[in-house]
Amino acid sequence: MTGTRIVNTLHAQEIARILDATIIGTADCSVSGADFIERATATQLAFVGCKRNLKRASASKALLIIAPETVRDYLDDYPGRTFLLVSEPEVAFLKIVGLILPARPRRSVGISSQAVVAASASVGSKTNIHPFATVGKDVVIGECCEIEPGAVIGDGCTVGDDVRIGANTVLYRETVVGDRVTIDAGSVIGSAGFGYRTVNGRHDRLLHAGNVRICDDVEIGACTTIDRAKMGSTVIGTGTRIDNQVMIAHNCQIGEHNLLVSQSGIAGSSSTGAYVVCAGQAGVADHVHLGDGAIVGAKTGIHRDMPGGQKYLGIPARPADQHARETMALKRLPEMRSTVKDLQKQVAILQEQMARQISAADSRVGGQEKAA
Amino acid sequence: MTGTRIVNTLHAQEIARILDATIIGTADCSVSGADFIERATATQLAFVGCKRNLKRASASKALLIIAPETVRDYLDDYPGRTFLLVSEPEVAFLKIVGLILPARPRRSVGISSQAVVAASASVGSKTNIHPFATVGKDVVIGECCEIEPGAVIGDGCTVGDDVRIGANTVLYRETVVGDRVTIDAGSVIGSAGFGYRTVNGRHDRLLHAGNVRICDDVEIGACTTIDRAKMGSTVIGTGTRIDNQVMIAHNCQIGEHNLLVSQSGIAGSSSTGAYVVCAGQAGVADHVHLGDGAIVGAKTGIHRDMPGGQKYLGIPARPADQHARETMALKRLPEMRSTVKDLQKQVAILQEQMARQISAADSRVGGQEKAA
Amino acid sequence: MTGTRIVNTLHAQEIARILDATIIGTADCSVSGADFIERATATQLAFVGCKRNLKRASASKALLIIAPETVRDYLDDYPGRTFLLVSEPEVAFLKIVGLILPARPRRSVGISSQAVVAASASVGSKTNIHPFATVGKDVVIGECCEIEPGAVIGDGCTVGDDVRIGANTVLYRETVVGDRVTIDAGSVIGSAGFGYRTVNGRHDRLLHAGNVRICDDVEIGACTTIDRAKMGSTVIGTGTRIDNQVMIAHNCQIGEHNLLVSQSGIAGSSSTGAYVVCAGQAGVADHVHLGDGAIVGAKTGIHRDMPGGQKYLGIPARPADQHARETMALKRLPEMRSTVKDLQKQVAILQEQMARQISAADSRVGGQEKAA
Repeated sequence: MTGTRIVNTLHAQEIARILDATIIGTADCSVSGADFIERATATQLAFVGCKRNLKRASASKALLIIAPETVRDYLDDYPGRTFLLVSEPEVAFLKIVGLILPARPRRSVGISSQAVVAASASVGSKTNIHPFATVGKDVVIGECCEIEPGAVIGDGCTVGDDVRIGANTVLYRETVVGDRVTIDAGSVIGSAGFGYRTVNGRHDRLLHAGNVRICDDVEIGACTTIDRAKMGSTVIGTGTRIDNQVMIAHNCQIGEHNLLVSQSGIAGSSSTGAYVVCAGQAGVADHVHLGDGAIVGAKTGIHRDMPGGQKYLGIPARPADQHARETMALKRLPEMRSTVKDLQKQVAILQEQMARQISAADSRVGGQEKAA
Repeated sequence: MTGTRIVNTLHAQEIARILDATIIGTADCSVSGADFIERATATQLAFVGCKRNLKRASASKALLIIAPETVRDYLDDYPGRTFLLVSEPEVAFLKIVGLILPARPRRSVGISSQAVVAASASVGSKTNIHPFATVGKDVVIGECCEIEPGAVIGDGCTVGDDVRIGANTVLYRETVVGDRVTIDAGSVIGSAGFGYRTVNGRHDRLLHAGNVRICDDVEIGACTTIDRAKMGSTVIGTGTRIDNQVMIAHNCQIGEHNLLVSQSGIAGSSSTGAYVVCAGQAGVADHVHLGDGAIVGAKTGIHRDMPGGQKYLGIPARPADQHARETMALKRLPEMRSTVKDLQKQVAILQEQMARQISAADSRVGGQEKAA
Repeated sequence: MTGTRIVNTLHAQEIARILDATIIGTADCSVSGADFIERATATQLAFVGCKRNLKRASASKALLIIAPETVRDYLDDYPGRTFLLVSEPEVAFLKIVGLILPARPRRSVGISSQAVVAASASVGSKTNIHPFATVGKDVVIGECCEIEPGAVIGDGCTVGDDVRIGANTVLYRETVVGDRVTIDAGSVIGSAGFGYRTVNGRHDRLLHAGNVRICDDVEIGACTTIDRAKMGSTVIGTGTRIDNQVMIAHNCQIGEHNLLVSQSGIAGSSSTGAYVVCAGQAGVADHVHLGDGAIVGAKTGIHRDMPGGQKYLGIPARPADQHARETMALKRLPEMRSTVKDLQKQVAILQEQMARQISAADSRVGGQEKAA
């Protein structure tokens, strides 16, 4: 996996110390690489994510294996190996991989002669502007940014420090981007929103005089679109993570530390509190609010304001437990249907029997009356 | 919001005249800016969208406020302010904002020396071709167009007058674009459709010899894809508006003045009448027709021809009122489930009681017979 | 449709021979073009796809028409025309269109002086690198490839022979692309996946040290995104076809000869067998497996492992026949609801009648006891 890249060598004891891991085994080995447990060699670090996968260690050549604390009592079957026990094996593993494979040093290339940068633009030190990028009039870009090939920074945009604008991503005019923001390739930020008013059979576009404001520490994926506001700003709150192919419409106010998963979409003027999650392909209607910590399940359709702190599922969305009851009831519906048909028959029989009983009783009374 | 842009000053009387508004108040003020009512200053225009939001006027510094006619009887609580009453406050507000903030004058830059334009291409007067745009062989582009940075106009394309092709948008070969069309950034028009025929376990691509034809006055958003036809043209009808991240497959015939909202998708060879609406994340299957004025709700899945003039919801789609009844019934299904269980018990009790009655009657008859 | 392109002339007998078609008619005509049956002229080939559309032949000027074998007994009404009967009319038609309109000869333009190619990159013979494309360090590109305008090939990527990388498509670092692969415009391959771990209220990005590997003979549409793996590779299997706006998350293992239709999405670490189909707007959750030949219907949401060889529908997904039963039951639910209400009334009446019968019987027994 590591190809020809220079790697660091780390000793088992050092890794254990970094991870604050419990050592099971001798821990007298070093690693200078890492791979999945099926493929790892004797000098590569490996990991087991859960107890169920522990048996993969039998066939592995790996000598040093990160594993969850829950496997502690099952390690006698794997002699000759050192296990480092932690609470989150994959996270720990990737942390050490990051130390073994040092981050590629950032190359300072400055402003490419094949980029177009307006004379009135200001570009901070150590910022790279790659070939075929375009930087418009009155743009301000901070320090240590990467403006990748083909990116377009429209007139009047402001970009903070340590920002990466992906290849062929477009920021339309007056977009404001905070510090430590990543916007991956192919995204479009600040295009006019889908706001029309139908007059005499024509859909006339409403003015979109606002912009998009992306706060600090936001990360945005590839091919995502965020439209600018009619007035004021469409806002993406601090620390929020947006996946690929997400759509955020005009005037949305996305809160802090949200997670918006791929192919989800949020319609115009909607807002979210802090720590809201929209799972894949979820949709949120326009002018609604999702409270702090609301979790919108995959493919769910939010159609009205929803309080925070709980999970929603279904189209239209309802609390997850209600949705589960309905889904279960729906699953049993065909069976219930035959139950109801049975009941209809049984009731019909009872009615017939009852009619006969009543008639018999009547005739008995009649007979007695006659007898009397 | 207006930054350093030059703005116009408008007097309240003039604004009232432009909007044909009813004036409540003295109307002896002027504005030279506009903002949301929470933020507007004494010299900025503000608006209230509905009666519910009228109370926001109390804390506002704004002296001139556009409001709906429905608040007329509730304005005594807001002395010292002038209200302009109209039927559509936001539309009226944005109209005046457009007058206060004059549209940026279109800069004439001609054909950038950093663009590539084929010798056989024809480019109309006052058309701007920005850096890193590519214009292929035999392309014809009309007058007053913007071909934004990085846009790719493939061989044989025809583009009308007053067209904007967004940054990094791609028109594949022989795409035909009418007059006054906008295609926003990152869209791809005219790529080969997803048409395969499986032969001996391989999916062989069918020929896509057709193109895409976009009629006059169409507006298309960012990161939208429209595939070219196998034969003939995929057509987008006059005046239709398409949002971001919409997918239109090969051979679709989209009617006039449609509204196709973000993340909706229309599969191959389907067609729509005039004034069809597809809300966000809606899907339309292949080879189906939606009649004039059909409205497809958010996340709805159309699987067969649907007559126009009504709204559809659900997967699979059904008329909205039927969908509402079913959704309501589904919501009550768990409750109905316990009702049915109760009924089963009650019927079982009745059956037992009936059996006893019948047996008692039988023994009575038997006794009488014996007695007889 | 064919504009000014040079076309070949084909005789009816020759076409029949190529298609192994049954000739009904004289077959003494030639065609030098092709169009839909409504528009075809006397020298253009046309086709009828199914029996229902045969009547369109009446008004057509076309003399040579490809049609399905099922219309054989209905052709007496269309004298003067020659029909060529085949099993798949559209496929046959497009095959002949491909012969009439010869494929545009591939122009060899080599490496554009307006492209940027790193000194350490290796580019095969007859490969075209178009203007404003960027090829990074240590990239290896095979023979006869098209790297379209604005495409970005990141450092360390490997691209096979006969590959087309669409305009403005981005391959991030170390992406591996096999032979005979097409990736259409505006796609992004190899961006870091959406993998975070929340620590002290911050979503910290996990290391994404892996890459994307696209096997031979894969075709990928426009504006599709495929994220790179945390470790190892996100893999797209041989012969798989991916439509526009599809999302494949980090570490997915997509099998061979899959068909992934537009706007479908597959979440992290999921895998598919061979010949899996995901219809439009389908979604697959993370860490699940779809068996060989599984068919996921449009808008369906797969939430757990599903065996192959059958079709799934619904959210959450269930086998298609179960889904059909539930949908039908749901449709009849409002009616069933009134049935249950009726039953409740009928049971209440029965209970009342029964109470009266029991009470009458008791008093009778009491009476008899008294009498005795």
